[in-house]
Amino acid sequence: MKIDGTPYRSIWVDETDHWSVRIIDQTKLPWAIDIVRLTTMESVAHAIKAMLVRGAPLIGASAAYGVALAMRADSSDAALAQAVTVLGATRPTAINLRWALARMAAKLQPLGGSARAAAAYVEAALICDEDVATNQAIGRHGLPLIEARAATKTVNVLTHCNAGWIATVDWGTALAPIYMAHDAGIDIHVWVEETRPRNQGASLTAWELGKHGVKHTVISDNAGGHMMQRGDVDLVIVGTDRVTRNGDVANKIGTYLKALAARDNGVPFWVALPSSTIDWTIADGLSDIPIEERAATEVTTMTGRALDGSIATIRVVPKDSPAANPAFDVTPARLVSGLITERGLCAANETALREMFHDLA
Amino acid sequence: MKIDGTPYRSIWVDETDHWSVRIIDQTKLPWAIDIVRLTTMESVAHAIKAMLVRGAPLIGASAAYGVALAMRADSSDAALAQAVTVLGATRPTAINLRWALARMAAKLQPLGGSARAAAAYVEAALICDEDVATNQAIGRHGLPLIEARAATKTVNVLTHCNAGWIATVDWGTALAPIYMAHDAGIDIHVWVEETRPRNQGASLTAWELGKHGVKHTVISDNAGGHMMQRGDVDLVIVGTDRVTRNGDVANKIGTYLKALAARDNGVPFWVALPSSTIDWTIADGLSDIPIEERAATEVTTMTGRALDGSIATIRVVPKDSPAANPAFDVTPARLVSGLITERGLCAANETALREMFHDLA
Repeated sequence: MKIDGTPYRSIWVDETDHWSVRIIDQTKLPWAIDIVRLTTMESVAHAIKAMLVRGAPLIGASAAYGVALAMRADSSDAALAQAVTVLGATRPTAINLRWALARMAAKLQPLGGSARAAAAYVEAALICDEDVATNQAIGRHGLPLIEARAATKTVNVLTHCNAGWIATVDWGTALAPIYMAHDAGIDIHVWVEETRPRNQGASLTAWELGKHGVKHTVISDNAGGHMMQRGDVDLVIVGTDRVTRNGDVANKIGTYLKALAARDNGVPFWVALPSSTIDWTIADGLSDIPIEERAATEVTTMTGRALDGSIATIRVVPKDSPAANPAFDVTPARLVSGLITERGLCAANETALREMFHDLA
Repeated sequence: MKIDGTPYRSIWVDETDHWSVRIIDQTKLPWAIDIVRLTTMESVAHAIKAMLVRGAPLIGASAAYGVALAMRADSSDAALAQAVTVLGATRPTAINLRWALARMAAKLQPLGGSARAAAAYVEAALICDEDVATNQAIGRHGLPLIEARAATKTVNVLTHCNAGWIATVDWGTALAPIYMAHDAGIDIHVWVEETRPRNQGASLTAWELGKHGVKHTVISDNAGGHMMQRGDVDLVIVGTDRVTRNGDVANKIGTYLKALAARDNGVPFWVALPSSTIDWTIADGLSDIPIEERAATEVTTMTGRALDGSIATIRVVPKDSPAANPAFDVTPARLVSGLITERGLCAANETALREMFHDLA
């Protein structure tokens, strides 16, 4: 999508050297657009772990390029195994990471060492291009959900965290239908939850919607239920880091609370995802999806722009108070109106998922 | 309760001049204990509006002293009416404010002007002392809810916002049973939700629990549902700014989401309140309780302690993104396990409330 009129992807191969990998450092957004050059597998692993790149689809695409960088340096079996291990250990919840690494390994293992680097770049580029096409398809399939509510008034969509174009290679998952609706001239407005503790809503979603010209309002995470109670939300669309085969949805901490509020107020609650986010190996999300526990400092501090324009980190919790920081929660399938996938809308249950993705299940 | 071993109330008449009013500036907590001297009705109104004092019971007590300061300056009927009007317009949601002002007016109107100031101080002190006794009674009645879960393990209580001693004159409402359990030697731990946008949980509840030695952990508002899903919450206790006669509960924005999660996970959800918080004039909280919309800057900025020790305010939302800030939401009575009042535990419905408070209803 566009930043101030210029189209961008969230990850690309350097236009000059044709091998290093460029990303936008998302820890610097919305205050600076800092484009970082990654030259080693280890630097990609760090970028994922430190969340310079984040969002399940972008994590997968980044890991694929991490494998390519590893193969460029050393295309041995041992180096390939090492890259898969190191990159696979960066984040535990997003299934796309494992999916992308498995795909890269399956492609590269049969090849001789000398062919691996070139093949890895080709496969990583394919993963990126497929992600863009997948997200456009998600946008097309999700668009009618918005159009159906657009007849007489502004359509108000609530979203949590960031499942926008910078969480993917382009277009986004949850935001793809929103961008398509906006581009189609539909009067749309997005309630953007700030998404503590890392504030991906306020710092990433609000930023990218603003840069593309989509109307939006930031609210605290606490306010989403009230907005639904007073009738100001037509539908909820969120992304996901992992969907089990029975339709349970892991997503950013707090998503479950909005699903409960949506159910309580009769507001449709949709989850947008590429099929690579489905984990066919597990059924029960609450017992089987590992939930990443991140550093307490994400809760005890906040970073933003000080009055003098500098970027500052402040402590917001008394110094002797401990904090806990689970990064995801699981929304049971019973609370999900449906899934928006690249193949169409799908009920959040095993039968429907197996029917739509019979070749993958 | 105690701050570093010294007992405090949240409001008191100055020990030296015996007429000015002392409060702890709660906008400075947890970083500084700044005791402010109020000498005029207008300064009390400002202290309420700017939230130097907050919490429904403390707002009521502060308003009572605001009337006393007004009467000291001018005890005419016009001045009394003016004080009630100005103080009554400071905050719209907490019913205790109206209750305290009505009580002061009823006491003072029949008196001759010369007797009003002294009577106002007496009545304000009575309101404060009654609040303390009321909260102690709330603590006693709520204590068995905690004791019942204390047999074999740590009792985990989740709370939202601050309904502690600094939200009242002393003891608190939601925290009164927690302080009593702690003082009785029960192994208790409190999940403190940070409570964006103003962070009363992280900055006030964590602070006062820490100062009194109660074990606690700060979590983002988003994490409360997940903590319940994984079985780490034994009960929820929150305060309230207004309860309708049918048991609907207005409280800090985000409370409704936790009530939904509690219901979904079979966790008891209790609301602690003095009977002065009950608004007998309305039944339906969703349609009839006015919800204060506060400044967007509370969402777009955060204040805390910078690395150099200074108190800094940072912007956390892109500069062109608007924000909305409803300060309260309404939890329907159907989601409330019960009310903890100064007269005992009470079901959240009109029949039970009228039975327990037949002399007030």
